[in-house]
Amino acid sequence: MRLSAGCELLFEASAPAPLILMLRPRSGFGQFVMREEYRFDPSVSVIEYVDNYGNLCQRLITPTGLFRVETSAVVETADQIDVQPGAPFVLIQNLPDYVLQFLLPSRYCQSDLLAGLANKIVAGIPAAYDQVEAIRSWIHANVEYRYETSDASTSAVETAKTKVGVCRDLTHLGIALCRSLTIPTRMVVGYLHQLEPMDLHAWFEAFVGDRWYTFDATQPKPRGNRIAIAYGRDAADVALATQYGTLNLTEMKVWVNASN
Amino acid sequence: MRLSAGCELLFEASAPAPLILMLRPRSGFGQFVMREEYRFDPSVSVIEYVDNYGNLCQRLITPTGLFRVETSAVVETADQIDVQPGAPFVLIQNLPDYVLQFLLPSRYCQSDLLAGLANKIVAGIPAAYDQVEAIRSWIHANVEYRYETSDASTSAVETAKTKVGVCRDLTHLGIALCRSLTIPTRMVVGYLHQLEPMDLHAWFEAFVGDRWYTFDATQPKPRGNRIAIAYGRDAADVALATQYGTLNLTEMKVWVNASN
Amino acid sequence: MRLSAGCELLFEASAPAPLILMLRPRSGFGQFVMREEYRFDPSVSVIEYVDNYGNLCQRLITPTGLFRVETSAVVETADQIDVQPGAPFVLIQNLPDYVLQFLLPSRYCQSDLLAGLANKIVAGIPAAYDQVEAIRSWIHANVEYRYETSDASTSAVETAKTKVGVCRDLTHLGIALCRSLTIPTRMVVGYLHQLEPMDLHAWFEAFVGDRWYTFDATQPKPRGNRIAIAYGRDAADVALATQYGTLNLTEMKVWVNASN
Amino acid sequence: MRLSAGCELLFEASAPAPLILMLRPRSGFGQFVMREEYRFDPSVSVIEYVDNYGNLCQRLITPTGLFRVETSAVVETADQIDVQPGAPFVLIQNLPDYVLQFLLPSRYCQSDLLAGLANKIVAGIPAAYDQVEAIRSWIHANVEYRYETSDASTSAVETAKTKVGVCRDLTHLGIALCRSLTIPTRMVVGYLHQLEPMDLHAWFEAFVGDRWYTFDATQPKPRGNRIAIAYGRDAADVALATQYGTLNLTEMKVWVNASN
Repeated sequence: MRLSAGCELLFEASAPAPLILMLRPRSGFGQFVMREEYRFDPSVSVIEYVDNYGNLCQRLITPTGLFRVETSAVVETADQIDVQPGAPFVLIQNLPDYVLQFLLPSRYCQSDLLAGLANKIVAGIPAAYDQVEAIRSWIHANVEYRYETSDASTSAVETAKTKVGVCRDLTHLGIALCRSLTIPTRMVVGYLHQLEPMDLHAWFEAFVGDRWYTFDATQPKPRGNRIAIAYGRDAADVALATQYGTLNLTEMKVWVNASN
Repeated sequence: MRLSAGCELLFEASAPAPLILMLRPRSGFGQFVMREEYRFDPSVSVIEYVDNYGNLCQRLITPTGLFRVETSAVVETADQIDVQPGAPFVLIQNLPDYVLQFLLPSRYCQSDLLAGLANKIVAGIPAAYDQVEAIRSWIHANVEYRYETSDASTSAVETAKTKVGVCRDLTHLGIALCRSLTIPTRMVVGYLHQLEPMDLHAWFEAFVGDRWYTFDATQPKPRGNRIAIAYGRDAADVALATQYGTLNLTEMKVWVNASN
Repeated sequence: MRLSAGCELLFEASAPAPLILMLRPRSGFGQFVMREEYRFDPSVSVIEYVDNYGNLCQRLITPTGLFRVETSAVVETADQIDVQPGAPFVLIQNLPDYVLQFLLPSRYCQSDLLAGLANKIVAGIPAAYDQVEAIRSWIHANVEYRYETSDASTSAVETAKTKVGVCRDLTHLGIALCRSLTIPTRMVVGYLHQLEPMDLHAWFEAFVGDRWYTFDATQPKPRGNRIAIAYGRDAADVALATQYGTLNLTEMKVWVNASN
Repeated sequence: MRLSAGCELLFEASAPAPLILMLRPRSGFGQFVMREEYRFDPSVSVIEYVDNYGNLCQRLITPTGLFRVETSAVVETADQIDVQPGAPFVLIQNLPDYVLQFLLPSRYCQSDLLAGLANKIVAGIPAAYDQVEAIRSWIHANVEYRYETSDASTSAVETAKTKVGVCRDLTHLGIALCRSLTIPTRMVVGYLHQLEPMDLHAWFEAFVGDRWYTFDATQPKPRGNRIAIAYGRDAADVALATQYGTLNLTEMKVWVNASN
């Protein structure tokens, strides 16, 4: 489906403040950016760079007062995500170099502490696609998706205990559990059509068989019509807005519509 | 000035053919992409990657028959290019690692063969900005800008002899002459407002003082309102469309307008 | 001083197991590798790649049974590390792109949780070099350096509480505290001459003024004669040996001697 | 075979001069660096970086007077190069992104001008391994390997006419001919055991089937026991010493011996 998606962020600053945005989706596997728009009000000077994960990042200094960022894109997406039950575990020695980093524990995904839970969930299930799917569906069944139950410092270990969180937390838990089984897993942030309530979204991808596959623990069933904006090890890498100084995000709107 | 620029390419193929495009400007020094559009008709699957120079490249396979590519962008550009008469030569040992490659001879810029001419042009002129400007203005005065006098294999050595060519040829000559003086120089392709006749354009940048500066031998005076699409050592790196097989480009339109 | 340093690792495996080593120092700032040796017994096939941080990593599969890795290097090092009291804080907008990632929290350096402690330590001290030095010397004074008090999952938050650890833990704490003040900080592992007891070592670097400076909370005073082997966000990135499967490290020797 | 190889370069400068060396082999496909040594006399400060092709480059400033560089390595190499008659042509759309650049013409390999000759040589021969081998053996049979018949500016087009040259020239011709058939081809410089007369050597690799294969037009038959030092598009990218200013290379020794 062709999607028209975007977001509007309103910041307020009592003094000029640096801001790093990561809001420009790139064409890539399963998506092509047909149109894209980026507006700043008031207009500012912006520098763009590519980070270690290939994400396009925008650096700028916000003026004092109100500062509005509006970005939107029309993107061709797949109606269904690819699924591959039975896709085998990739031996470490066969993983591409670039993929190896997604085996490591990270700030919000302490995979070194969660092998016990992971092994319990996947007991008797063949490696690796089916194990990832078992983890995804275990999280969906056992971790409640509820707003305002977690904050920016909540990590997978905590979510494994509290069993409640938002998409970011469910994703962190999925990543940590998979990595503890030596399955490379990475975080994706982006848009999902018909997400309820509409917001920016997070999910994860696992490298099994011979490629990355999409998993989303917040949804009962795999759904397509996603736009990936950024990839990384966890939320630390893929913050869509990293703000410094006296800057506050005071308002945010997100929309995802079918386009034509 | 805010520019709205774009191009439309029409290809015809007697069988499916691979095509690599480089038609997506990135935000960068002196330009910010506010809006961008990319359309293929008929629609095809596209993969995008970043090359060694940071250019975004689109890989696809064209269908049999007609294939239309339309791309456009709204970009904030500077009305004037920065000039810096007197900017000094950068000692090799002080050049950033990444810049060193732009000292090497390349397919169309045989700098190893043109030091004689370069030294003649810059005799008595202080290094390095002023030398680059002297080269630029020598080319403008001595090499005629005329269509259909050169082809895809024409190089700086030939243009130094024939003293005629298109923007690509004048640019190659400028690059080769500067590199022969150990001044890092790279090719830029993109859009230029009010270019006559309107077309995709090419110019060059030299690294002097502590950054890249823009030079354009096709123009009597430095002009701004440029949109860079791709950077590279010479035309081999920055072909906006690299076609294979039975594919022919049968039509091309380019436009650059003031936007608001 | 010219140092001759090396280590010998003995592994034992009940079945062939993948192993990733990061044991090849590169020439870089303040060090030049004059000689280097790498031996495997029994001999195995090895692939080397460069990770996101520029570290050279060796991938291999160990045979069943005993497997010995011996690596050594002769490296020119500086007798004194550079110190720069008074070096100022670098505004976010002036940090090089590559350095930005070292502001983010990471697995063992939860900088998002330690701003309170950091602000207490640096109260009244000018940003930024002097603050980093205050943090370093606070850790040296307040966190006991003792073996077998921590393990592979110990993080900065825990070390801030237990106030005991090994070089890795003191380093993680230093990094987390600095990052909580928006000072880019990274982990270094390597060799230190006359370390007591001799072992592989870890320390940190902070980006202040216009470059990285070395800090080591395990030492009463800044000391030079270091060989950096790997850089990263924290220990997750710079494990000198990442082992999988049934592989066990059964023995390790490290040596660092003056050479001539 | 385990090879011990090295070279000694003696430079003379009437004033300090920048020098860029590319003399450190890396472990990679088919070779593992077990030991390596790098000495400068007099000792100088050196910075090392990785270029676009993954080569390790050393930047330094030579002192006035004599300056000696000695580098050596003990490397495990394969006694035989891999050959794969019948390996098929890789469709452009299936080439890895990184490989695409090795289809482009370059300074010394004007593939855009040599398709006529290439097609004549490979007439009736199936694509692509067998075509590359046909090109290699045609060059071996038709281009004389003779010292002092070419210089630093000699390119494939000239060698195709003069039919004489050194390893660099034969390699450039092989690369240009293969690229004209849309076969990705790159240059390798390094050591070859029992090369007569002993010297630094150059050969080429073509990407066919699903990987790079080694070809050497200077030898009657494929031979192994090679140490690759650097890879690139052509000699412009892989100069083992790029000198500037008043620096002269006055002496060079190369050795390659069986080691144990």
